[in-house]
Amino acid sequence: MTEATKTAVIGLGSMGYGMAKSCLRAGHRTWGADINPEAVKRFQGEGGETGALPSDLDVAVIVVLNAAQTEAVLFGESGIVATLPKGAVVISCATVPPAFARDMEARCGEAGVHYLDAPISGGAAKAAAGALSIMASGTPEAFAAARPVLDACAETVFTLGDAAGPGSAMKAVNQLLAGVHIAAMAEAMTFGMTQGVDPAQFVEVISKCAGTSWMLENRAPHIVDGDYTPRSQINIWPKDLGIVLDVAKSAGFSAPITATALQQYMVAVGMGLGHEDDAAIAKVYARNAGLTLPESKD
Amino acid sequence: MTEATKTAVIGLGSMGYGMAKSCLRAGHRTWGADINPEAVKRFQGEGGETGALPSDLDVAVIVVLNAAQTEAVLFGESGIVATLPKGAVVISCATVPPAFARDMEARCGEAGVHYLDAPISGGAAKAAAGALSIMASGTPEAFAAARPVLDACAETVFTLGDAAGPGSAMKAVNQLLAGVHIAAMAEAMTFGMTQGVDPAQFVEVISKCAGTSWMLENRAPHIVDGDYTPRSQINIWPKDLGIVLDVAKSAGFSAPITATALQQYMVAVGMGLGHEDDAAIAKVYARNAGLTLPESKD
Repeated sequence: MTEATKTAVIGLGSMGYGMAKSCLRAGHRTWGADINPEAVKRFQGEGGETGALPSDLDVAVIVVLNAAQTEAVLFGESGIVATLPKGAVVISCATVPPAFARDMEARCGEAGVHYLDAPISGGAAKAAAGALSIMASGTPEAFAAARPVLDACAETVFTLGDAAGPGSAMKAVNQLLAGVHIAAMAEAMTFGMTQGVDPAQFVEVISKCAGTSWMLENRAPHIVDGDYTPRSQINIWPKDLGIVLDVAKSAGFSAPITATALQQYMVAVGMGLGHEDDAAIAKVYARNAGLTLPESKD
Repeated sequence: MTEATKTAVIGLGSMGYGMAKSCLRAGHRTWGADINPEAVKRFQGEGGETGALPSDLDVAVIVVLNAAQTEAVLFGESGIVATLPKGAVVISCATVPPAFARDMEARCGEAGVHYLDAPISGGAAKAAAGALSIMASGTPEAFAAARPVLDACAETVFTLGDAAGPGSAMKAVNQLLAGVHIAAMAEAMTFGMTQGVDPAQFVEVISKCAGTSWMLENRAPHIVDGDYTPRSQINIWPKDLGIVLDVAKSAGFSAPITATALQQYMVAVGMGLGHEDDAAIAKVYARNAGLTLPESKD
């Protein structure tokens, strides 16, 4: 039985909303905040607290888009770190460069606030079910303070080191692969179409062969169904693969496959597909080759 | 209970040898042939037949390196099709362009011989265990004639069409993904190393996350163990990804991720790694970034 805490979830998008609900379900008094008032109102309707954060908050979960938003929430005008009590913990979930995570840890430390470098993986459904994977690193004190909320939100918590950085590093590694695998799946499926391989047959056969990947099994059915409702948007990938390539450049590391996949996502953005499901990268290949993808049955 | 046949396996490399043994084990009288006399002698020691093929052969399994060798075995000087009885079947297992498979089917047909377009997947261990995946297409007559040998060699036979072509097309699709996934795994693992992610921790965490692939789980441990004993050689990939890109070019299809992965394998060949396990593509990244990969514990 974990202790009930006062928790705030900043950022009620598809991931943050699910995490906030998981906190409520676990018995934590939970404040929700977002720039979108509709999301806040909806959370209030589920029993969440809204409005000003209490002065005795235990945990602040930051589930925003990127490093810039994370820094603004923590240290910008009306940044929350200034108002957090000593001993509180920030759980930072956005995909950010490892060096940024180390910097945030140091600046939170100056305010007596713990910082857990805690990127998340698993998608909106697992966020809602409290079944995320969290790639976490931080001090033992940060882990201890975060534990009740980690238990509420995660099925698996990888403990990757005793300071910020390794969590974000592992997330970048995962995003490199995930982004490449989605694009490679689309490249392979549409290549197969030029040779008469039906998309449904592609999924049926390749998912049982050495060419399979987690992303292939998860995303390829979206193309078969012609369903580009965004579970995870195209727009995620220029951001996340961009982080990978920035970090790689700083390290003198050549990542040509990642760079090539990023260019395909950039074409998708240029085609106006940024807000579609990331499986829509298949449309880039289909357009280039004059192929017709399956249409939605709706 | 399937009927015992007279079967020849032409090409006793790591895959063909295992298939020939699987045929023996299933009770088929099996002839083995290879340009390497050591392989033939070894097969004889296991109860295989050697020397001239009988005039009433039922099945000829061709497990050579590529299209040129397949054509030489079938139609070259002392090619076997001229000596096969009408109604025999050729099971062609090399990775070849779909158009080549259609051509071979037509030329076999002129001689009254069935042709099964039957690329294989699964590696040497599954070949030896009779547990391959076979991506097969051909006429119902070709399937019927091949059935006893398919049953002996395969755990899964995908029935992909009633003429040659789709089997090779699906194999090309699978190889595109498999080749890209191995290279992407190496890119991600070594990128992680620049950020302090230990290779063993990479395998432990990523294999449970959305970034995983069949190839990652199979090949990444070779790098962790510093073991480049060739289960599948670097040299396979310039060949197989070359076939993919040749077929793609003919179809007016742009495959930039495949093309980029191929270049990384070409660097590996240039470094003299062609006969090492394909996980050695990590050495290309490690050299470029000045990283030291794990060494063998032996």
